[in-house]
Amino acid sequence: MYALAEELFPIPRSITGEGVRQTLRILQREVPELALKSVPSGTKCFDWTVPPEWIIRDAYIVAPDGAKLAQFKRHNLHVVGYSEPVDRRISLADLQAHLHSLPEQPDAIPYVTSYYKRTWGFCLSDRERNSLPGGDYQVKIDSVLDEAGQLDYGELVIPATVADAPEIFLSTYVCHPSMANNELSGPVVTVALAKWLQQLPERRFTYRVVFIPETIGAIVYLSQNLDHLKQAVVAGFNVSCVGDERTYSYLPTRHGDTISDQIAQHVLQHKVGDYVCYSFLDRGSDERQYNAPGVDLPVASLMRSKFGAYPEYHTSDDNLDLISPGGLQGGFDLLQLSLICLEANRTYRATVLCEPQLSKYGLYPTARKKGDPKPKDLLNVLAYSDGRTSLLEIARRLEQPLWQLAKAANTLASAGLLEECPPMEN
Amino acid sequence: MYALAEELFPIPRSITGEGVRQTLRILQREVPELALKSVPSGTKCFDWTVPPEWIIRDAYIVAPDGAKLAQFKRHNLHVVGYSEPVDRRISLADLQAHLHSLPEQPDAIPYVTSYYKRTWGFCLSDRERNSLPGGDYQVKIDSVLDEAGQLDYGELVIPATVADAPEIFLSTYVCHPSMANNELSGPVVTVALAKWLQQLPERRFTYRVVFIPETIGAIVYLSQNLDHLKQAVVAGFNVSCVGDERTYSYLPTRHGDTISDQIAQHVLQHKVGDYVCYSFLDRGSDERQYNAPGVDLPVASLMRSKFGAYPEYHTSDDNLDLISPGGLQGGFDLLQLSLICLEANRTYRATVLCEPQLSKYGLYPTARKKGDPKPKDLLNVLAYSDGRTSLLEIARRLEQPLWQLAKAANTLASAGLLEECPPMEN
Amino acid sequence: MYALAEELFPIPRSITGEGVRQTLRILQREVPELALKSVPSGTKCFDWTVPPEWIIRDAYIVAPDGAKLAQFKRHNLHVVGYSEPVDRRISLADLQAHLHSLPEQPDAIPYVTSYYKRTWGFCLSDRERNSLPGGDYQVKIDSVLDEAGQLDYGELVIPATVADAPEIFLSTYVCHPSMANNELSGPVVTVALAKWLQQLPERRFTYRVVFIPETIGAIVYLSQNLDHLKQAVVAGFNVSCVGDERTYSYLPTRHGDTISDQIAQHVLQHKVGDYVCYSFLDRGSDERQYNAPGVDLPVASLMRSKFGAYPEYHTSDDNLDLISPGGLQGGFDLLQLSLICLEANRTYRATVLCEPQLSKYGLYPTARKKGDPKPKDLLNVLAYSDGRTSLLEIARRLEQPLWQLAKAANTLASAGLLEECPPMEN
Repeated sequence: MYALAEELFPIPRSITGEGVRQTLRILQREVPELALKSVPSGTKCFDWTVPPEWIIRDAYIVAPDGAKLAQFKRHNLHVVGYSEPVDRRISLADLQAHLHSLPEQPDAIPYVTSYYKRTWGFCLSDRERNSLPGGDYQVKIDSVLDEAGQLDYGELVIPATVADAPEIFLSTYVCHPSMANNELSGPVVTVALAKWLQQLPERRFTYRVVFIPETIGAIVYLSQNLDHLKQAVVAGFNVSCVGDERTYSYLPTRHGDTISDQIAQHVLQHKVGDYVCYSFLDRGSDERQYNAPGVDLPVASLMRSKFGAYPEYHTSDDNLDLISPGGLQGGFDLLQLSLICLEANRTYRATVLCEPQLSKYGLYPTARKKGDPKPKDLLNVLAYSDGRTSLLEIARRLEQPLWQLAKAANTLASAGLLEECPPMEN
Repeated sequence: MYALAEELFPIPRSITGEGVRQTLRILQREVPELALKSVPSGTKCFDWTVPPEWIIRDAYIVAPDGAKLAQFKRHNLHVVGYSEPVDRRISLADLQAHLHSLPEQPDAIPYVTSYYKRTWGFCLSDRERNSLPGGDYQVKIDSVLDEAGQLDYGELVIPATVADAPEIFLSTYVCHPSMANNELSGPVVTVALAKWLQQLPERRFTYRVVFIPETIGAIVYLSQNLDHLKQAVVAGFNVSCVGDERTYSYLPTRHGDTISDQIAQHVLQHKVGDYVCYSFLDRGSDERQYNAPGVDLPVASLMRSKFGAYPEYHTSDDNLDLISPGGLQGGFDLLQLSLICLEANRTYRATVLCEPQLSKYGLYPTARKKGDPKPKDLLNVLAYSDGRTSLLEIARRLEQPLWQLAKAANTLASAGLLEECPPMEN
Repeated sequence: MYALAEELFPIPRSITGEGVRQTLRILQREVPELALKSVPSGTKCFDWTVPPEWIIRDAYIVAPDGAKLAQFKRHNLHVVGYSEPVDRRISLADLQAHLHSLPEQPDAIPYVTSYYKRTWGFCLSDRERNSLPGGDYQVKIDSVLDEAGQLDYGELVIPATVADAPEIFLSTYVCHPSMANNELSGPVVTVALAKWLQQLPERRFTYRVVFIPETIGAIVYLSQNLDHLKQAVVAGFNVSCVGDERTYSYLPTRHGDTISDQIAQHVLQHKVGDYVCYSFLDRGSDERQYNAPGVDLPVASLMRSKFGAYPEYHTSDDNLDLISPGGLQGGFDLLQLSLICLEANRTYRATVLCEPQLSKYGLYPTARKKGDPKPKDLLNVLAYSDGRTSLLEIARRLEQPLWQLAKAANTLASAGLLEECPPMEN
């Protein structure tokens, strides 16, 4: 995962343009089933219109002394996203109105965009900005805002191994330039999850996985697929900020009461223990769209350090040093366990009345092999399997991880002592 | 409000009689739409019968030394309410059985009534009682218990500005003689609320406001209007003890789960913070009748120092010094805010799917003028407006006062981004 | 109760056999209406089969020196329950595989059974075991496993004094040999409850009381009566471990939400205050069967020191010294109060609208005699009697014991101010 992040890091992504396509093609190399899709600029989607495609070739400032500053080719954060073309000579005073820096983080280049209001600008470290000499500056941005362009995204469907399966939805974004936790951690962890899902022998759910530009991409995707998603999706996660090692966190759905919320919290409690539980008021990524009224998809977020909640966020300091193989693995593990739990969270009904005579089934303590479920777990899973108490709810009462109890449930089902009840309704 | 209380203070009110009528006429002067109504003595109302009208002209005791004591004309608390007429000479020992005083509050005259058991009596300070010389006393009560009398009350209907509106019910009582917090604070604050309600350009609810004698008046009113009230009333407050400055308090409805309870607590939390939350077991005023089984009106109480919970209660010390313009204003503000919240507590549905592009509506941060709702509030109100989450519930989640969020909701509704859903059902 | 326990103590009970029959006959002497029933060995009951009847006549070991050890006739715990017959000479080493003792309780004889796996064995104190000299031992168990035998139990039905009454179910077990808290406390307290129930002038419920061998007896009984029980039983208790003085405890039903749970906790809170609240995960007696999915009987447990939670459990130290008349009385009182509460827990509706004029009914404070319900309780019971709030729920709100409030409710019902609503649905 970290190597893929390294490969993707330098690409100058935005919500449209060649950087997104290049990123998607690399992801497709990893998961060939990924379908690359696009919609033309100007397409209406709910309250929005797909903007022109932004083509950025070069950008820099030439100082009065001839020094070349804020070079896009050195760091793609130097140019304000969606800057219109400019090529002119202006005074330092006029230039200042187009510069962005962070006085409190004097060495970091901030990340600034202006997708829907035409302007241009440069981002640079506050230290560099403060050392600019007076005089006239040459500013050059070689960009095009192409009304005949397009917005690109990737969609991957991993079908269930059973018929008429509901769907689990995973979404991640591919629209930030060179940033690591708040960009690349999402797609690389999601690609790893997709590979793992593809090789599973059984899937109770179909998995729909999208790699989209944030906000406008989510809105485009929803505008084209809403009826299907509302009918099919029973759980989902927005995969964002899953790459550093500092913490784990969770952001709920609008009402915090979906199976996605329950599973996310269960996994965090049993796998991590200590984590940050945010409010829906702290939302900021595509969960905003997925949880909008009328959209109502059960999409929660499992994260490491959340967007907006760490100092390097949206600066050049959110780089490959901030994330790590261990950080990405932690994010992957959490999401993988959540999917494992969703698959395992069946509702069973005991097939015999009263406790069964376990010895008849070779399940009595004396017959137990190492690694077999504990007889107590077997009896407790049986005791609560009344056709309306899900395995997740049983796990809660037993204060055990669902993924452990699933073994007991499988053992009992194999012995014919449990039968599965109709599929989970959220 | 305080001046009106001063004017009303000396009037000798009881549950019937000229004092009530005189009080109602003064209130009618303030709010000419107030309708004065009456029912004859002897009228059956549920388990009760309207008692004879009590006409009290004078009352006093003449001591053996000729001193005139416990003079009704000096303080109308000196005579036990509903005393039958008496004019005779008795020993001090016999008189004692008809005297009421408070050993623990030796300077206060207690308030005593005997509406349904025929007797007579005098109230005086314990200090005065203890100084009574031995000998024979002349006792004189010039009263009539008029079986052909009536019970009076006032009813004010302030219609909604829309058709088919549900009602909000306000009740206060006019039956105690010269007492201030536990009597006059109620009608003077209620009159001020009525004046404010009358001049509102829009009212989503009809307001039904009654000025009645406590207990028997409420029972009379309910017996004559129950079917209508049960069908129409969605919220209500009993207005009592709203005049001092010592505290704020709340007494819930029978089950504590009505919109009146929710609004009352919301206002107290955001406006006052620190207040006394009573139990329905602490009830004592007309909320007893409004919340009786089968009556089931959603009537809660917002108070300052609650009846029975302050030492001056039901004594001559509950006088104009106990209440104050500031105390009355605090009571008024609480009830006014509650009515504002009830009016504002609509349920909305977002009209566009996903977040709207706020800049299209001039609502983006850069376009914000001082006093405009915060963009974050706009987005949060939108995010929860799913047609089933009321503005009160949204306010709870945002931990903000509903009256603040109402501005954001109005702005969004004006921009066409929210539409109102069918009226609140409690 | 203690005397009956003394009489029953020496009898060698098991899940079948003469010891159970002898025990049931003594209980029948106390309650002649107790019906003795049986099912043949080999009967199928759900997942189980009734085992052969175990006839045990004698058992002992003869040491190399001729000493007679582990004599069944001295203590019936010395032989492993359901031991097959044996009569042979074996070395100490081979004997050890058939011996059971408790190193941590060196003076106690443990209680061991092997109902469904054929074997034989002896139980003895660890001290005795460690002093066994080397050499050959004669082991003798004079037992029969009679395939043509039977399983016995007792059933007592105490009918309601009204027609079409739902049932309350009490279950206790009679299958342990000489043990006191975890055996005899159950039947002797249950017999005392039955006697008390029989002499009640009115019973709103029919009481079904069973004395059965644990587990297999409960399964047999359920397999023969399940349809009736599921339709009729609204509450129930498993009566076990109610004889010592150390603590009080409660073990809930599967979901902990039945009226049995509510009543049990109410009684414990108001009668005992400090008690141990177990989880359903701590179950271990016949509540396992009664609460199994598909059985779903509302059977909770009120206990003193719970099975498995005291050191003497399942050893010879659980003897007549462990229980006491006071301990048994405490267990009896708790269950009796629970049944009193179940009988009293009606739901009422006030017959008059608004508060009644209490003086008309002689219920006004001035008319109160010592022991009469307090006027405040009368008014509070009236105020909550809305046809949907049970007396138990009212008791909770008033923080008073239901058995106290029942007096107020009865007074009001006698005065015609309350009418009972349709019977409690759980």
